[in-house]
Amino acid sequence: MSHLSTLQSSTDLLSTSTIIALTIFFSLLCACIVVGHLLEENRWANESITALLLGLGAGAVVLFVSKGNSSRILVFSEDLFFLYLLPPIIFNAGFQVKKKQFFKNFTIILMFGIFGTVISFCLVSFGAFLLFKRIGVTSLNTQDYLGDTTIQVRRFMPTVFRFSSTHTFGFLMQLSVPYCQQRIPCVHCSSIDRYQQYQCLDILETVGDFSLPLLFQYLPWYSSLLSAFIIKTLYFGRHSTDREVALMMIMAYLSYMLAELLNLSGILTVFFCGIVMSHYTWHNVTESSRTTTKHAFATMSFIAETFIFLYVGMDALDIDKWKASSASAGTFIVVSTTLFALVLVGRAAFVYPLANFNTCIRKRGSSNIEFRQQFIMWWAGLMRGAVTIALSYNQFSNSENKKTDDSALMITSTIIVVLFSTVVFGSITKPLIEAVLLRHTKPNVSDATDIPSLEELRILFIENGEANDTGENQPAAAALRRSGLRLLLTHPTWTVHHLWRKFDDRFMRPAFGGRGFVPFVPDSPTGAADGTSGT
Amino acid sequence: MSHLSTLQSSTDLLSTSTIIALTIFFSLLCACIVVGHLLEENRWANESITALLLGLGAGAVVLFVSKGNSSRILVFSEDLFFLYLLPPIIFNAGFQVKKKQFFKNFTIILMFGIFGTVISFCLVSFGAFLLFKRIGVTSLNTQDYLGDTTIQVRRFMPTVFRFSSTHTFGFLMQLSVPYCQQRIPCVHCSSIDRYQQYQCLDILETVGDFSLPLLFQYLPWYSSLLSAFIIKTLYFGRHSTDREVALMMIMAYLSYMLAELLNLSGILTVFFCGIVMSHYTWHNVTESSRTTTKHAFATMSFIAETFIFLYVGMDALDIDKWKASSASAGTFIVVSTTLFALVLVGRAAFVYPLANFNTCIRKRGSSNIEFRQQFIMWWAGLMRGAVTIALSYNQFSNSENKKTDDSALMITSTIIVVLFSTVVFGSITKPLIEAVLLRHTKPNVSDATDIPSLEELRILFIENGEANDTGENQPAAAALRRSGLRLLLTHPTWTVHHLWRKFDDRFMRPAFGGRGFVPFVPDSPTGAADGTSGT
Repeated sequence: MSHLSTLQSSTDLLSTSTIIALTIFFSLLCACIVVGHLLEENRWANESITALLLGLGAGAVVLFVSKGNSSRILVFSEDLFFLYLLPPIIFNAGFQVKKKQFFKNFTIILMFGIFGTVISFCLVSFGAFLLFKRIGVTSLNTQDYLGDTTIQVRRFMPTVFRFSSTHTFGFLMQLSVPYCQQRIPCVHCSSIDRYQQYQCLDILETVGDFSLPLLFQYLPWYSSLLSAFIIKTLYFGRHSTDREVALMMIMAYLSYMLAELLNLSGILTVFFCGIVMSHYTWHNVTESSRTTTKHAFATMSFIAETFIFLYVGMDALDIDKWKASSASAGTFIVVSTTLFALVLVGRAAFVYPLANFNTCIRKRGSSNIEFRQQFIMWWAGLMRGAVTIALSYNQFSNSENKKTDDSALMITSTIIVVLFSTVVFGSITKPLIEAVLLRHTKPNVSDATDIPSLEELRILFIENGEANDTGENQPAAAALRRSGLRLLLTHPTWTVHHLWRKFDDRFMRPAFGGRGFVPFVPDSPTGAADGTSGT
Repeated sequence: MSHLSTLQSSTDLLSTSTIIALTIFFSLLCACIVVGHLLEENRWANESITALLLGLGAGAVVLFVSKGNSSRILVFSEDLFFLYLLPPIIFNAGFQVKKKQFFKNFTIILMFGIFGTVISFCLVSFGAFLLFKRIGVTSLNTQDYLGDTTIQVRRFMPTVFRFSSTHTFGFLMQLSVPYCQQRIPCVHCSSIDRYQQYQCLDILETVGDFSLPLLFQYLPWYSSLLSAFIIKTLYFGRHSTDREVALMMIMAYLSYMLAELLNLSGILTVFFCGIVMSHYTWHNVTESSRTTTKHAFATMSFIAETFIFLYVGMDALDIDKWKASSASAGTFIVVSTTLFALVLVGRAAFVYPLANFNTCIRKRGSSNIEFRQQFIMWWAGLMRGAVTIALSYNQFSNSENKKTDDSALMITSTIIVVLFSTVVFGSITKPLIEAVLLRHTKPNVSDATDIPSLEELRILFIENGEANDTGENQPAAAALRRSGLRLLLTHPTWTVHHLWRKFDDRFMRPAFGGRGFVPFVPDSPTGAADGTSGT
């Protein structure tokens, strides 16, 4: 009935092959972590590349030992990937996201997500349709190009669609970082390393585009509010800090499962669950729980991510897959190159126009995306990760033309593109960003003048009689009351944000807890610098 | 090749039944945590009982919904149990064990482990052999009674053997608690709640007995020393706290896998790995890593344990299993009662004699085990957990007489015994201990007079020129130099411990780190009260 029952197919108490596979995998994971640590200051390498190369190496060794029969220690499994590895990564991304910057750039993110994906998708699909016919790949049907958009897109995007999709979401989260960077330069290095982390997030933007209007239909993420409510009301920390942590973990995972069960987007759900949990639940738990959850979620995400890259690396040398396709080496290269070229063009086709369009409609200097930044936006989205491979398996190994050469060709070409883009593009990214962005950083004067300062917002609260310290600022409040309407007209996003904060302070936080609504512990890790506490 | 490949048998992207099963399971887990929290101060209930009853309830609901066809949401899988659920529990037990008390009582633990198990095993096997013949259970062969001792015992014990085994190990760890209790009364409550936690540890004592002399053959736990060495040498905290935590987790798991691969005892290995990691590695990591690992390991253990009880509860109502045996309800009851009676007798047959024997050879009052304590030792070992069920499946569902009624009878009887002992005995345990032990606690005068104080040991170090503050204590050292030989003669365990500490301070800690050999952070959670830092 369930997949766990299939585990029983092993007749031994503990099947030796499983133990061997797990031992190899965990040894490689250890190696990845140690090597990744040693290469931390290296400009060209990162953990993903290390994991991929180690995986490839291990795959080659297994292939050699088994005399070319099989390099499959573990077969790529979509269940393993989508049920166990992806949720912690996405949840952690939501949990650690810099909420203030994310919501400030929300309209840009939305625009890139919706229009960018449509443009890129049309271009890549159409291009593949035309070019593959010429190459000789003919057996793929229209669905293979376009994907079953009604159902598949809402759950996960089919391969070709994936190729066209973008890293906008992850990158625009990245874009939100500079405001911190200008203040804390040391944040910068870690933010570059997070490019890889955001790689898996790319699934978000496409799912998100089709579902954001339906956000409030996505009930499962309310489980995070429920967790906040339960922990606040019952005061869990009284008895056990472990129970708090366990409840947060399980409720987050439950939201993913519930969303999948209701045929909604589990990815989006668990992402918002992470945001809500870091906004409410995290503030309700004891101090040690806060430290624990922050690091434990990050660690789980880190392990899952490294595992995925290792997995992809080992899976790439699966000899059966390569044998299934009778195409020549030339065809592999041509198809892979075509796909990659289409991705390059498809991404360029919306990053530059949309960025310039954004500059046009926003006259003020702050939100301008410079050409250098546009280039990095284009570049950073080119790397493809394990999600792409998972989706290509899903699209091509389960479709009706399962046995045809072309399906195997598509899977192997996808693997080539992923390996190439991750290893080559990934290693160039860090030096490139340093070269392009940092050496030309001009002092961002507009930052102080254009964006309403926290002080202004605080005074807006006074205007509405919500401030805590109403003693001294009364004249200032009166002076700025007139500017309230002006703010609404000039900064719609900020005003929406402001309205949300009013609502949050008046209704949400008293019910669900959150910063300021729980007893303050002097040396608790609630600092704004760590990014989990900003609104 | 591996079990993960069998996951692919589900043809959907994400098979709905898996998602349903996981959703139900995680919802029940949440319910367990919340109910467990609410019942925290209840004397009769605890989380294990809650989980068992909730599991039974859910099983009944599923049975009702599926109209009696099947209550199997998840089928009991030995792989899931032994590969994923047991290791975190055992590792955490080792990680959080009060090392000082554990090693102080080490000889008693060893004695109970070796002789107790042999006595109990012989008695129960022989009793079952005689009694079952009379009841009419005839198809079981000798191996079913005795177990394939050469291989099976070294890995996991077969059922009948399990029934005879004891909770000595867990209980003697428990015995080590009182010395703290006399100082910190509030520790007491949590220590009682830990009875359940030690339940799974019972597998240790039997495995341990046969393997302790071979301890140093068990190479895999050296991986924990390796982790200490790596983290100390490379100074991981410099770059990322998550990498430290990930490395500790993965290395611990790797030690388990390696031991299984080499056909050694993974359980024992991961237990010692936990001890070594808390002694060395834990002191080498950053402060936030320390908090994180301490709570994250405890949380994982907690989740795994609750999951197991839930699992056993749901599995108990599996209708196919009950149908497989054609025996009448009367036979079930007779067999279960017989088994349980044998366990009662078998445990009594060694707890009382050995405890009294221990009193005889140790003239001094400190190590005496009073009759009240003996009674609790006997009682606390009677509860059987998921390990028993896992082993009964292993013994009876995979043996050659797979299809016979008697194998099904044995499995179902095992389940009855486990349910009965956990729910009934488990709920009585807490009040019983309060009634028997605490109300009669006399002031333990011998504690101060007999056991060499820390001060004495510290002076012994001076004697060997190892003390840090050699300034003031010179006369005292001279006076106590003569008492060194006396100590060795009167307190052999303590002297071994002392020699170990010398070795530890001179060779081990400088190489692998540990308390005192890493920079001291003022408010780090290194307090002796939490039990992870004592030697």
